[in-house]
Amino acid sequence: MAQHDLDLQLLGQKTNYHFEYNPDVLESFDNRHPDTDYFVKFNTPEFTSLCPITNQPDFATLYISYVPDQKLVESKSLKLYLFSFRNHGDFHENCIVVIMKDLIKLLDPKYIEVWGKFLPRGGVSIDPYANFGKPGTRWETIAEQRLAQHDLYPETITNR
Amino acid sequence: MAQHDLDLQLLGQKTNYHFEYNPDVLESFDNRHPDTDYFVKFNTPEFTSLCPITNQPDFATLYISYVPDQKLVESKSLKLYLFSFRNHGDFHENCIVVIMKDLIKLLDPKYIEVWGKFLPRGGVSIDPYANFGKPGTRWETIAEQRLAQHDLYPETITNR
Amino acid sequence: MAQHDLDLQLLGQKTNYHFEYNPDVLESFDNRHPDTDYFVKFNTPEFTSLCPITNQPDFATLYISYVPDQKLVESKSLKLYLFSFRNHGDFHENCIVVIMKDLIKLLDPKYIEVWGKFLPRGGVSIDPYANFGKPGTRWETIAEQRLAQHDLYPETITNR
Amino acid sequence: MAQHDLDLQLLGQKTNYHFEYNPDVLESFDNRHPDTDYFVKFNTPEFTSLCPITNQPDFATLYISYVPDQKLVESKSLKLYLFSFRNHGDFHENCIVVIMKDLIKLLDPKYIEVWGKFLPRGGVSIDPYANFGKPGTRWETIAEQRLAQHDLYPETITNR
Amino acid sequence: MAQHDLDLQLLGQKTNYHFEYNPDVLESFDNRHPDTDYFVKFNTPEFTSLCPITNQPDFATLYISYVPDQKLVESKSLKLYLFSFRNHGDFHENCIVVIMKDLIKLLDPKYIEVWGKFLPRGGVSIDPYANFGKPGTRWETIAEQRLAQHDLYPETITNR
Amino acid sequence: MAQHDLDLQLLGQKTNYHFEYNPDVLESFDNRHPDTDYFVKFNTPEFTSLCPITNQPDFATLYISYVPDQKLVESKSLKLYLFSFRNHGDFHENCIVVIMKDLIKLLDPKYIEVWGKFLPRGGVSIDPYANFGKPGTRWETIAEQRLAQHDLYPETITNR
Amino acid sequence: MAQHDLDLQLLGQKTNYHFEYNPDVLESFDNRHPDTDYFVKFNTPEFTSLCPITNQPDFATLYISYVPDQKLVESKSLKLYLFSFRNHGDFHENCIVVIMKDLIKLLDPKYIEVWGKFLPRGGVSIDPYANFGKPGTRWETIAEQRLAQHDLYPETITNR
Amino acid sequence: MAQHDLDLQLLGQKTNYHFEYNPDVLESFDNRHPDTDYFVKFNTPEFTSLCPITNQPDFATLYISYVPDQKLVESKSLKLYLFSFRNHGDFHENCIVVIMKDLIKLLDPKYIEVWGKFLPRGGVSIDPYANFGKPGTRWETIAEQRLAQHDLYPETITNR
Amino acid sequence: MAQHDLDLQLLGQKTNYHFEYNPDVLESFDNRHPDTDYFVKFNTPEFTSLCPITNQPDFATLYISYVPDQKLVESKSLKLYLFSFRNHGDFHENCIVVIMKDLIKLLDPKYIEVWGKFLPRGGVSIDPYANFGKPGTRWETIAEQRLAQHDLYPETITNR
Amino acid sequence: MAQHDLDLQLLGQKTNYHFEYNPDVLESFDNRHPDTDYFVKFNTPEFTSLCPITNQPDFATLYISYVPDQKLVESKSLKLYLFSFRNHGDFHENCIVVIMKDLIKLLDPKYIEVWGKFLPRGGVSIDPYANFGKPGTRWETIAEQRLAQHDLYPETITNR
Ligand SMILES: [Ca+2]
Ligand SMILES: [Ca+2]
Ligand SMILES: [Ca+2]
Ligand SMILES: [Ca+2]
Ligand SMILES: [Ca+2]
Ligand SMILES: [Ca+2]
Ligand SMILES: [Ca+2]
Ligand SMILES: [Ca+2]
Ligand SMILES: [Ca+2]
Ligand SMILES: [Ca+2]
Ligand SMILES: [Ca+2]
Ligand SMILES: [Ca+2]
Ligand SMILES: [Ca+2]
Ligand SMILES: [Ca+2]
Ligand SMILES: [Ca+2]
Ligand SMILES: [Ca+2]
Repeated sequence: MAQHDLDLQLLGQKTNYHFEYNPDVLESFDNRHPDTDYFVKFNTPEFTSLCPITNQPDFATLYISYVPDQKLVESKSLKLYLFSFRNHGDFHENCIVVIMKDLIKLLDPKYIEVWGKFLPRGGVSIDPYANFGKPGTRWETIAEQRLAQHDLYPETITNR
Repeated sequence: MAQHDLDLQLLGQKTNYHFEYNPDVLESFDNRHPDTDYFVKFNTPEFTSLCPITNQPDFATLYISYVPDQKLVESKSLKLYLFSFRNHGDFHENCIVVIMKDLIKLLDPKYIEVWGKFLPRGGVSIDPYANFGKPGTRWETIAEQRLAQHDLYPETITNR
Repeated sequence: MAQHDLDLQLLGQKTNYHFEYNPDVLESFDNRHPDTDYFVKFNTPEFTSLCPITNQPDFATLYISYVPDQKLVESKSLKLYLFSFRNHGDFHENCIVVIMKDLIKLLDPKYIEVWGKFLPRGGVSIDPYANFGKPGTRWETIAEQRLAQHDLYPETITNR
Repeated sequence: MAQHDLDLQLLGQKTNYHFEYNPDVLESFDNRHPDTDYFVKFNTPEFTSLCPITNQPDFATLYISYVPDQKLVESKSLKLYLFSFRNHGDFHENCIVVIMKDLIKLLDPKYIEVWGKFLPRGGVSIDPYANFGKPGTRWETIAEQRLAQHDLYPETITNR
Repeated sequence: MAQHDLDLQLLGQKTNYHFEYNPDVLESFDNRHPDTDYFVKFNTPEFTSLCPITNQPDFATLYISYVPDQKLVESKSLKLYLFSFRNHGDFHENCIVVIMKDLIKLLDPKYIEVWGKFLPRGGVSIDPYANFGKPGTRWETIAEQRLAQHDLYPETITNR
Repeated sequence: MAQHDLDLQLLGQKTNYHFEYNPDVLESFDNRHPDTDYFVKFNTPEFTSLCPITNQPDFATLYISYVPDQKLVESKSLKLYLFSFRNHGDFHENCIVVIMKDLIKLLDPKYIEVWGKFLPRGGVSIDPYANFGKPGTRWETIAEQRLAQHDLYPETITNR
Repeated sequence: MAQHDLDLQLLGQKTNYHFEYNPDVLESFDNRHPDTDYFVKFNTPEFTSLCPITNQPDFATLYISYVPDQKLVESKSLKLYLFSFRNHGDFHENCIVVIMKDLIKLLDPKYIEVWGKFLPRGGVSIDPYANFGKPGTRWETIAEQRLAQHDLYPETITNR
Repeated sequence: MAQHDLDLQLLGQKTNYHFEYNPDVLESFDNRHPDTDYFVKFNTPEFTSLCPITNQPDFATLYISYVPDQKLVESKSLKLYLFSFRNHGDFHENCIVVIMKDLIKLLDPKYIEVWGKFLPRGGVSIDPYANFGKPGTRWETIAEQRLAQHDLYPETITNR
Repeated sequence: MAQHDLDLQLLGQKTNYHFEYNPDVLESFDNRHPDTDYFVKFNTPEFTSLCPITNQPDFATLYISYVPDQKLVESKSLKLYLFSFRNHGDFHENCIVVIMKDLIKLLDPKYIEVWGKFLPRGGVSIDPYANFGKPGTRWETIAEQRLAQHDLYPETITNR
Repeated sequence: MAQHDLDLQLLGQKTNYHFEYNPDVLESFDNRHPDTDYFVKFNTPEFTSLCPITNQPDFATLYISYVPDQKLVESKSLKLYLFSFRNHGDFHENCIVVIMKDLIKLLDPKYIEVWGKFLPRGGVSIDPYANFGKPGTRWETIAEQRLAQHDLYPETITNR
């Protein structure tokens, strides 16, 4: 409840942006429909981080989709969290897994998946995808099935 | 039958629009093919509501798809119902679940799903999806399967 | 054989168009490959009928797909049949089910499905979908499975 | 200068939304490059107003493009201004001309054009376009030329 | 003024559709901005008529764009007028020119153009385009220029 | 008049297809609007001919657009004429110019242009374009202008 | 080995095209990876044949996809084979099944499917699809499953 | 010449990225074809800067197009220059004009234009465009003409 | 670890490109998340090799997707490896299988798949697809299932 | 004439590919329609060259469009000529100008333009465009006009 109040506050006030990796900005609020399994997807086409080797900016669209249990992620705090990668250096694959794990820690969701589609570097682009189902629930099996069926139809890429 | 007459009347006469949440405007009529399982999908690209915190208008396309049992929703009343969110403040996720529950109450359908695709705020967009299968029928299992398979191929988002 | 001759005749001669619902114009011919299960799909983007309440014209693209048993539908007669809805008033949902049932009666197919995608009225469009598998064959189960998997990825609708 | 300060304030604070037509919310700030002719275009895909006859909501994307003279329109105030049409009833054509005239009054620009692309009602959509060049400058002639060349390639419309 | 009242009436009441060519249904109302030259475009993707020889239905999207002088065409009456071609037989080219002439007669506009894009028959589609500028005004010259520049970039056609 | 009757006949009867180049199949009929300059465009995505050297089939979409004077080309005869290239060998560039000249001979039009977009051979595709304006009329100048402005925005080609 | 040599020869020399149905031109070569199950798909957007009744040309894109056993089809011979339908008259459905059977005879593949997507005639297009799995292998079951899942998302058709 | 050597060095070595506005990183090299007027366009879809008021990241695609005189901009230095806006706060309009002026200072080009297409904030996006022709040359007039003709066909924006 | 260092070195230094097939350039580094099954996909739209018979260049987009076990492929070394096919002659099918096998040898992954989509030659394009699951793990079964479900919706090909 | 014979020979025989810049492979043949001004456009999506500094392969689509005078370029020789850049190192801008000049030398055309659209390196792509009109003819002026009007609507670039 207190957390929810915080969210309301965040959504209606001026924001301080952090440009160094900072999972503490993530906030959650209570799920009003814990009896219902449903998906919430965030489309975030403005993700940017730095290559840890060359320091060159990288750009991606992230698709974050989850089935809440008791908590939902507050959308503005999620945006602040993703902005905190702006001047942070990490590999594409690690960014995706780290984001998923931070959200698991925050939300303890029934299910979550994170798909990053990065802009190409040198003519090659990389798209990591990770997912997770809560152990001991049917979502553990669903996570395995979704991974097994992942991306049978890769998006056509022509670089233009 | 009486309800059906009411629908005909609605479809051919001038309409009074309500801009405050009002599930009472929903009307149904009899399914002439209760022996056949079939889908009816409504594409409604003009959904708009208000953010409960900032009072800012939000916009979405809703995809409502259901398998009728004894009743169908009258399309004009559905439109009026959706218009009634225009000046109503609620979170994206709640709007979707509330719409699904109002239609379950009205129609007692074999199956129903509601998918909202909202326009971005601050570079991030949110797409909630909920579904429901009538307990004790095969549609209960189908609902679980459809949720488990939901959105394996997220729509490409570039914000332009 | 006689029916087939009739088809040939239809395809090569001038046509009389009927604009009132008329299932009698439907013609079939013999399937030369009854040992093989295969699909035949008709894309018919020129379907038009009348709203039974307002008398306003409605427009749709129909996708009719079936697995023949002993008979195939003659394509020109199918076109004439669909044209016969031009000045006929009926609801979207009924049009789709009626077309499916008329083709079942004509062809006794192993499987058939009909999907109508109607143009919007008042900002909302409706897409009914019905299917059928021959009872007592594996296509009965397939029909249930296809219905259960129907339209997990609704076509994006923006109204422009 | 004082006006500019106000803009900064608006952009960083919580907003009060008005849903009745209100041109007073429009704010401007000083053009730092009055020696340079350049275009600024606003893409606003979330315009909504009411039909003055049926009270039904209408939806449009507006493209507002202008060449500033001494002033620029503050973007957040423009958004508030457009939101103020939300519960206001007016015809499509009048909305477009009124918006153009309000901006001329605010900015006294060298050139301005407003193009509205409305969602269809009953299968027909309407796209009004108006423009204006400051009398006595070369932009008066340019406005006439741009009107004469307007929309030689209409956007393809299929309603789906 | 009286004409305007009639329009309001049309827009808010039930409609009688005519399916035989009937230019009398066209209605106009007063232009509130006769001092301003602006375009109004109607996108009508639901035009259908009959081939005068084969009686086969034809389908088209019409783009009607004009610069009003003293009058605007009332949109619902335009829709009724276009519906009146539904069971009327005429060649593609004649339909387009007749529609343009009927609107010139109704509106006496400064400028008007009508572009029809018909669905293919036998693998070939036909797109007639006609325009008109009021004699003795600069729009007479503009009409000639627009015709001279017409369709330098034909829409890509693949028939699927 | 007699020619017009022949057209009507062609359109409603069975056709004999010729697959060797045969300009004699082209037919015209009278233009009912010789007082009006307007465009008629034919989209013909099914053109095929043979390479004169390798005998390999070539495929193209042709865009034929003209401003009639006293005559229009009958659409079915145009289709037959284009089919007559099916087993005829000629270079891409010559096909386009020959088609234009045959239509000039038939129609004596005010203006005509023919644009062929051929499918690639060996990763390279060729798109010839020719046009013509009647000497001594303003269309002679317009033809030169249209050629000078031709294809400033080449269609994006990726071969997939 | 000898067969392979023949392929090399075909690929590097001038070709004699046949325009009458001729399955003898089909050639195969040895699969170097018989231990691996993999798909090879041919996209052939230039298929054309004749309607057996009207003699009118028909056009299609064929998608041929198979899992080789001991043999692969030589690509140039496949092209020659498909060209041999150019002046051959047969119904759409038969063309597809015949092509599949000829390739089964040539290759004895583990699996094969052929999907034809024909251009419309009279506003209606037809898309036959047939497949086959080698009896007694797991591909027999896979063929049934693929047929059962065939085309749940029909390609959007607008005819333009 | 020395400058050119520096470029070669830049292109083949590891890079130091600057994230504060820094026009000094821009480098040029000699145009080998000063006798020929030609365009060079840079597509840079990864531009990002900060809002000077809220400190929120902004994202844009920049299209920079110029006609060189004696110098060309070295592409890697241009990329570094654009990266230097990453943590720099400025308004959209100013970014575009500043970039144009920095490049004019570096290159003294015959002509240059810069078009920024920014991602939306709060549902509204802004696209500034500025251009420049060298005074006393024909490119001064061309710049005025290009500005007068700018963006007659605004890109369709739906925010999804 | 040593290998990882090598990768870092590769990513930040000038590169020596090899244009003859050279699997030795492939480098791997340690997977930091071996407890998590996740996909990594490489989109490489710039693959080119030579036809072994005609010596003609071939072009393709490759989609390489795998689930790592202990190792990940270093992206720059993958790019160098793919460039090494530039002057190497091999058939489409063999290229795809060889690339998959080289990566299996390098990475010993849980799962891998390689899909090549080649540009057309003579109007026909070829798309080979191969996959592999580690024997004795659930990925062996998943590989079979993914192959069985491969490409039920072939990409639409029009050659333009 | 002799030249024309050589072309025929080239088109029907096996080819020797050169991968070092070699303008001597270019061949021409006589224009049969020197009395007619018409455009011929080559779409060549498979251009590849090397970066002269890093030796990295670059990829582009070239659009070559010209108005012939007495000669046409033989298409297969053009393809061979473009392939000869495969292992040749040069900057993007120089490639485009050199290709234009080689074709001017070969053909002495009335008009020619070459537009290269290169795939991105490091997130930035470059599109050079050069053109030429024969001095002393109206095409000299047209070339200037086309350059002045070049690319007012840059292709949307998102890198995915
Ligand atoms: Ca891309
Ligand atoms: Ca978007
Ligand atoms: Ca739509
Ligand atoms: Ca202000
Ligand atoms: Ca639409
Ligand atoms: Ca009226
Ligand atoms: Ca089409
Ligand atoms: Ca005639
Ligand atoms: Ca292509
Ligand atoms: Ca062989
Ligand atoms: Ca189509
Ligand atoms: Ca330099
Ligand atoms: Ca957008
Ligand atoms: Ca293609
Ligand atoms: Ca020659
Ligand atoms: Ca791109």
